[in-house]
Amino acid sequence: MVRWEPGAKERLQAAALELFAERGFEQTTAAEIAQSVGLTERTFFRHFSDKREVLFYGQRQFLQAFADGADAAPPDASPLEVIASALRAAASLFPDEGRPYSRMRQSVIDQNPPLQEREQHKAAGLAATVAAALRARGIGEPAATLAAQSGATVFGIAFAQWIRDGETRSLAEIASDILGELLHLTNAATGPVRPGI
Amino acid sequence: MVRWEPGAKERLQAAALELFAERGFEQTTAAEIAQSVGLTERTFFRHFSDKREVLFYGQRQFLQAFADGADAAPPDASPLEVIASALRAAASLFPDEGRPYSRMRQSVIDQNPPLQEREQHKAAGLAATVAAALRARGIGEPAATLAAQSGATVFGIAFAQWIRDGETRSLAEIASDILGELLHLTNAATGPVRPGI
Repeated sequence: MVRWEPGAKERLQAAALELFAERGFEQTTAAEIAQSVGLTERTFFRHFSDKREVLFYGQRQFLQAFADGADAAPPDASPLEVIASALRAAASLFPDEGRPYSRMRQSVIDQNPPLQEREQHKAAGLAATVAAALRARGIGEPAATLAAQSGATVFGIAFAQWIRDGETRSLAEIASDILGELLHLTNAATGPVRPGI
Repeated sequence: MVRWEPGAKERLQAAALELFAERGFEQTTAAEIAQSVGLTERTFFRHFSDKREVLFYGQRQFLQAFADGADAAPPDASPLEVIASALRAAASLFPDEGRPYSRMRQSVIDQNPPLQEREQHKAAGLAATVAAALRARGIGEPAATLAAQSGATVFGIAFAQWIRDGETRSLAEIASDILGELLHLTNAATGPVRPGI
């Protein structure tokens, strides 16, 4: 018989993150995470396939938010308008009260190169998802991939800023500013760059 | 006594790539690669730290080309002009006669998720190198990181196109076209996007 543990997943996640931050990701076992909140290793593995999963299990929901945001843009939206809509939807997954959690998660990932590679792989998955959403709207290549990867870039820079010490703006606000910077950067450069390369 | 093997590194590299393509990366050992061209495993490890290194050893030179290209831009160049200069320098490392090699290398990487993660990590390293070169020119954040990541995006899309079957344009030509597409994409979008997000 499997006993239902109310809030077990959330407790395991919070405990895992604290142990990862304290001792390092490699030095922490699933059994230790479970024990620290009075649960068994078996309970841990009912919720997570492995300890890495604790850091990455929201990924499907994250990609879905981007795809849903892209789908929500009007049919005649330009590629970058679709990206803006996708960014808004993804940013809504990260309310300000989650900032301390995201900050701690990032510090664990920054200390572990394999986790960094996994995080970069996630960014590549994000770009692929958004590019597929753009192609489904009839946007051709390379515009779809370019716009999707630019969206992933904007999200990544905005997210890094959002978890910076002292930052108080919302993720949506920061993402909007960074997208504006990208437009400014490329607009400012038109003309001289094209013939140059 | 270590006997000098003329062209040993190149022979090992060519043999490795063929075996990886034929049998799969995981199924090929360093000893097998060496034996296939009449060399010893010891000779293999004098040239490469491991079999993965065969696919990635040019990385330092690749990053250096980007950085040198960025440095070669005039002092008053805009961020995207610096990127255009970096792309030209990097593209010159890939002459058309190397296309079949790059094609085969990519097919090996596409079949192996850990190699894909490594390749994405390389793209992240590229963006970090170029961002540092931009900051050294006095370009602030987030412009430096945005421009650098856009440059990595353009290079990645151009490279994928360059090794596509039937493609005959040079990498520099394709990169120039893709950079132009990025400018077009963002220019076309100005106005409606900014207030939207």
